[in-house]
Amino acid sequence: MKLLLVNPNLTQAVTDAVLAAARARAAPGTELVAVTGSFGPAVIGSRAENALAQHGVLDLVAQHAPGCDAVVLGVSLDTALWACRELLDIPVIGMTEAGLLCGATVATRIGLLTNGARMGPLYRELVQSYGLADRLAGIETITLTPQQMVGAPQAAQDAVLAAARTLVERDGAEAVLLAGAAMASMAEVLQPQLPVPLLDGVGCAVALAQAMVGLRLPRARVGSVSPTGGRAVQGVSPALAQLFARPT
Amino acid sequence: MKLLLVNPNLTQAVTDAVLAAARARAAPGTELVAVTGSFGPAVIGSRAENALAQHGVLDLVAQHAPGCDAVVLGVSLDTALWACRELLDIPVIGMTEAGLLCGATVATRIGLLTNGARMGPLYRELVQSYGLADRLAGIETITLTPQQMVGAPQAAQDAVLAAARTLVERDGAEAVLLAGAAMASMAEVLQPQLPVPLLDGVGCAVALAQAMVGLRLPRARVGSVSPTGGRAVQGVSPALAQLFARPT
Amino acid sequence: MKLLLVNPNLTQAVTDAVLAAARARAAPGTELVAVTGSFGPAVIGSRAENALAQHGVLDLVAQHAPGCDAVVLGVSLDTALWACRELLDIPVIGMTEAGLLCGATVATRIGLLTNGARMGPLYRELVQSYGLADRLAGIETITLTPQQMVGAPQAAQDAVLAAARTLVERDGAEAVLLAGAAMASMAEVLQPQLPVPLLDGVGCAVALAQAMVGLRLPRARVGSVSPTGGRAVQGVSPALAQLFARPT
Amino acid sequence: MKLLLVNPNLTQAVTDAVLAAARARAAPGTELVAVTGSFGPAVIGSRAENALAQHGVLDLVAQHAPGCDAVVLGVSLDTALWACRELLDIPVIGMTEAGLLCGATVATRIGLLTNGARMGPLYRELVQSYGLADRLAGIETITLTPQQMVGAPQAAQDAVLAAARTLVERDGAEAVLLAGAAMASMAEVLQPQLPVPLLDGVGCAVALAQAMVGLRLPRARVGSVSPTGGRAVQGVSPALAQLFARPT
Amino acid sequence: MKLLLVNPNLTQAVTDAVLAAARARAAPGTELVAVTGSFGPAVIGSRAENALAQHGVLDLVAQHAPGCDAVVLGVSLDTALWACRELLDIPVIGMTEAGLLCGATVATRIGLLTNGARMGPLYRELVQSYGLADRLAGIETITLTPQQMVGAPQAAQDAVLAAARTLVERDGAEAVLLAGAAMASMAEVLQPQLPVPLLDGVGCAVALAQAMVGLRLPRARVGSVSPTGGRAVQGVSPALAQLFARPT
Amino acid sequence: MKLLLVNPNLTQAVTDAVLAAARARAAPGTELVAVTGSFGPAVIGSRAENALAQHGVLDLVAQHAPGCDAVVLGVSLDTALWACRELLDIPVIGMTEAGLLCGATVATRIGLLTNGARMGPLYRELVQSYGLADRLAGIETITLTPQQMVGAPQAAQDAVLAAARTLVERDGAEAVLLAGAAMASMAEVLQPQLPVPLLDGVGCAVALAQAMVGLRLPRARVGSVSPTGGRAVQGVSPALAQLFARPT
Repeated sequence: MKLLLVNPNLTQAVTDAVLAAARARAAPGTELVAVTGSFGPAVIGSRAENALAQHGVLDLVAQHAPGCDAVVLGVSLDTALWACRELLDIPVIGMTEAGLLCGATVATRIGLLTNGARMGPLYRELVQSYGLADRLAGIETITLTPQQMVGAPQAAQDAVLAAARTLVERDGAEAVLLAGAAMASMAEVLQPQLPVPLLDGVGCAVALAQAMVGLRLPRARVGSVSPTGGRAVQGVSPALAQLFARPT
Repeated sequence: MKLLLVNPNLTQAVTDAVLAAARARAAPGTELVAVTGSFGPAVIGSRAENALAQHGVLDLVAQHAPGCDAVVLGVSLDTALWACRELLDIPVIGMTEAGLLCGATVATRIGLLTNGARMGPLYRELVQSYGLADRLAGIETITLTPQQMVGAPQAAQDAVLAAARTLVERDGAEAVLLAGAAMASMAEVLQPQLPVPLLDGVGCAVALAQAMVGLRLPRARVGSVSPTGGRAVQGVSPALAQLFARPT
Repeated sequence: MKLLLVNPNLTQAVTDAVLAAARARAAPGTELVAVTGSFGPAVIGSRAENALAQHGVLDLVAQHAPGCDAVVLGVSLDTALWACRELLDIPVIGMTEAGLLCGATVATRIGLLTNGARMGPLYRELVQSYGLADRLAGIETITLTPQQMVGAPQAAQDAVLAAARTLVERDGAEAVLLAGAAMASMAEVLQPQLPVPLLDGVGCAVALAQAMVGLRLPRARVGSVSPTGGRAVQGVSPALAQLFARPT
Repeated sequence: MKLLLVNPNLTQAVTDAVLAAARARAAPGTELVAVTGSFGPAVIGSRAENALAQHGVLDLVAQHAPGCDAVVLGVSLDTALWACRELLDIPVIGMTEAGLLCGATVATRIGLLTNGARMGPLYRELVQSYGLADRLAGIETITLTPQQMVGAPQAAQDAVLAAARTLVERDGAEAVLLAGAAMASMAEVLQPQLPVPLLDGVGCAVALAQAMVGLRLPRARVGSVSPTGGRAVQGVSPALAQLFARPT
Repeated sequence: MKLLLVNPNLTQAVTDAVLAAARARAAPGTELVAVTGSFGPAVIGSRAENALAQHGVLDLVAQHAPGCDAVVLGVSLDTALWACRELLDIPVIGMTEAGLLCGATVATRIGLLTNGARMGPLYRELVQSYGLADRLAGIETITLTPQQMVGAPQAAQDAVLAAARTLVERDGAEAVLLAGAAMASMAEVLQPQLPVPLLDGVGCAVALAQAMVGLRLPRARVGSVSPTGGRAVQGVSPALAQLFARPT
Repeated sequence: MKLLLVNPNLTQAVTDAVLAAARARAAPGTELVAVTGSFGPAVIGSRAENALAQHGVLDLVAQHAPGCDAVVLGVSLDTALWACRELLDIPVIGMTEAGLLCGATVATRIGLLTNGARMGPLYRELVQSYGLADRLAGIETITLTPQQMVGAPQAAQDAVLAAARTLVERDGAEAVLLAGAAMASMAEVLQPQLPVPLLDGVGCAVALAQAMVGLRLPRARVGSVSPTGGRAVQGVSPALAQLFARPT
């Protein structure tokens, strides 16, 4: 089984973190391919950057999805998730979506932890868009720069732990989802210090993608997720134009 | 990996159907053990029978879960699902829950099809209890006796197909979940005749159980799903009393 | 009028407390019969124990409901409430349900107070299952052992008062429901010290049961609450098997 | 026990219907006093008339509530219900509210039937304002003039029956609430022809008012329902001005 | 364009504040007429007073709306808003409604600030009645007497600022709506000291009323907002009786 | 006042229709500038095309918004609406958002009519994302090709009228919103044949943009809509890169 990991931002270190987290959970026979965006935002930290990154995600899957068995979006806002599902014939899984769905089998309510004070509302809206607001215990944000994340890992871990405990104690979270590709690798390290399961979206997405490949469900031929087929787009990469243009 | 399939009602044919559906989706290395209830309702067709079957589910997992890696509830009302999660240290997955969670990655709204006119409200309540009401396109019920199910398979399939099409056309369902252990085996047969994915709860539960085993999440040590430990119950089987009594 | 009070756990002291609270509110002509479970959990403090107690409730009503005019469930998780409504031809009222419904006529939002930190989510789910989440101001839990409840009544009352005041001041509760059969008798004692109505679920259930008996509504003959009739169950008490088996 | 029945519109025939329906369900010792509005709308058939009738309800309770043990609003939009609860020290019950609360103990979802095509949204909004939308199966309206109601009772009953059956069959209503003071007396007559309980709001309100009187709950001293006390209003009846002006 | 500003309470100073706030935002060509109630509550500080004021609003629009192009309700509970929409052929806008609708274009969630501890639930219910609960960040109340409002403006402003900051910092409000006609004039003064937009309901209502006049939408001829026409009411002012009585 | 009308798809005829509809409702002193996308989808008829068009919208506003007083998105999925609000210092209004907000002042529930069977779920999700699901009566889709729209205007109008009437009669819509830039010009023509207001999103957006310009609200300096400032993006037009890069 071959999984494509898509990181639409331009930061290779994030792609590496996603790939490492994926490897830790992938089944022995699963091959992983990780790709990084070539245009768009360096880091996604606002709705504007997320809007722009949608083009990037589509471009990456147009180029790299052929030959893969499933796609995992390694971007914690699950950018262009349903758009990819319209365009591709293979399972596509978002990392935050997967964290919520897998978490729903171990916790009645999940706490979500992310980096960036202004990002809280975006994740609340994302969870609501999945119809999963009732399963959300609360959202807690830390505010670390990329430099702090990398240069002071202990301080970063302390901040994550403190926020996770707040979710457990204040909001009654029965599991905590680390929403942020850059935090994916922290879950395994910090788990022993937390009294509830710590969900790493990348790991959950890999596990769920493998599960969906195993189910061999056909695509819908009607409805809003069915193939559009034969659509004209201009001024984009040939691979993307071709993906839109292919017949149903 | 060893999965326990639990059918709390007393009908071996239902257990057999669940086991067959599970086998069709289980990974090569997955061992399946299916058990049938020894007391309680012959068939679960009401809240009263479902209430009684909770004892049956607990009794079965107390006896058979030791040595297994995960439990799949092969009963479409997901009877005693969260109770099992409190008592056991391994993943426990409900078949309707799994159908909804896996279906959420292929459809914005899922139609649910079950047998028994009076059962519609029970499934609506079950979906609501999962906080997933926004993802439910609608519910459609057929009314076939067990005899009709077994004795007139073509007529039964026609009824299922017609109801599934109603969910697609009237309610905009983008996938259809067959809720009913006895219908599990139909999904593969009928899929070619439907324009949307047909979800078999047992298959989804097996896939999701395998995924959760792979994630190796620890149990919560606090909150409503954490182990109770040291609880006194009387007048039940020794295995069940012991399961309640074991220390945290 | 004869009311059956059902306590499915095995603790006679709880039954006595329920009976005392019921007597304080019953109309002069109302006869009260209180029964205690003979198998199952000593105390219900988890979903697992509540799941098991459903069998106990059904068993008790099968034996004792004949000849009664209504049933009051003297267990604050309203265990097997709708199951009993399917099986019996007389009104069945849950104590927490009744506290919420009666409270809805005096308060726009009700605070719920219970014993046991892990029980909060169970009551939140119960209130949601009634479709009454919008009327819930908040939930507050105290954590007293049975010994503390009985052996240090003043300390127990202080804990209840403090939690109730938190619900009023922090959450804007305009009434407070004591959810827990063991706390039923406290309402009358503590009321003078609280600025909002203190709802005792048992008293509310008795009042509502009397009201429903007076309305003389017939049972539904269709739908999910109508009699099932003629259902086969095995391995249970003769009275319960007979209740399931009786024709519609 | 003395109950005040308040009809804020100017139609004595409606007051008589409310009184008759109340008598049919009141306990032997309950005395009933029914009063009719002296200004405002002849009939309430719009939000504008309902807005005006709020003054009428307040005026009637200011004059007639003293000496009573509880108030029942005999107007199916429950006009000024919470306003009365602020002003009065005795229980106040609305007839549609009571139908929903009592109905919630016999049906998972209730159908609401009223007269006047434009009235459907008003009742939907009323049910939502009670936080009970999840318990509403649907709303069905008939369109009969007062003349048709009185002059052709058989045709009126047929229309009500047909609409009630639609609620049961199309919407899955497990009970049907007749919302409309003028229809109160129909419930008993039509019940035998319907397969689900037919709820008469007046009867339910009388039963619930009696229950609440029996519970002897104190008023809240804080919060949005507590007494306002000492408020100045002008240009209204002396009784109403005095009711607003009395100290807390 | 001529706008009628309606203040149903009896306090001229409130009308003056509403008029001043309206003038600050009205387009150059917009003429403003402000009217004050002649009977009813001196100040609206409870549901009871708001219920009574509905009659007052209807009376004022019956007398003064003829010749105007739109009506703005200068009362922050938007008293009788939809009732006026049934009766009048011109746009009618509520000040809190307008603050929420305009605020929805600049903030994902809005904080609402009002005066009077017991008023919080009324505004929560008002926002819910508009179906806008998801856009509400939170509600914060201050408790100033009219004397304090007028006599100690600096202290009043400090209290408003502190509460607004709580909404921003604790609840994540991205805009703050001052709900209270008496606070309308504060928005412009305090804006420089707050990091989010401060919404003045009167200004928003004037802007929205002008917008709706410009759209020239016809009235609905069917449904719950269409003209009732030909309704009989008694004991009210001739102008109001005539407004109800006019044919469709 | 100068308004920028943004059409991110590549079809000039759609831009022309948007401009014409805007002109019909703009105030005398309002200048209108309409721009068309230079890359991306020819027409937006799926989530995938909408995802891609987000880049196009950002690119257009980066180039053309400077010097304007407000932006109106002339694309009925309100593509990149909140992203634009983060990036720009002037009001940005979406046409479907505006139709819903303006419609909320004339109708309790609004019907939404769009072109394309697969588009229904996208609009349902859009309305939900605004927290306005309670105000949605229903969605009805027609299925006309661009050729039919242009080449058979009478047939197209008949289809729109029929769908609008379904929304009124089946779903109780009290206003109907035409969601689709290509249908904007139809509202005025068809209004006389419908019994409820017909909302044209472009006209509503122009009116609301003018209103918001008049209110002169400052931008939030904190929260998820505040300026991001100083963000690095690559591989996009210089204007867009500069817009992301400008300091807070």
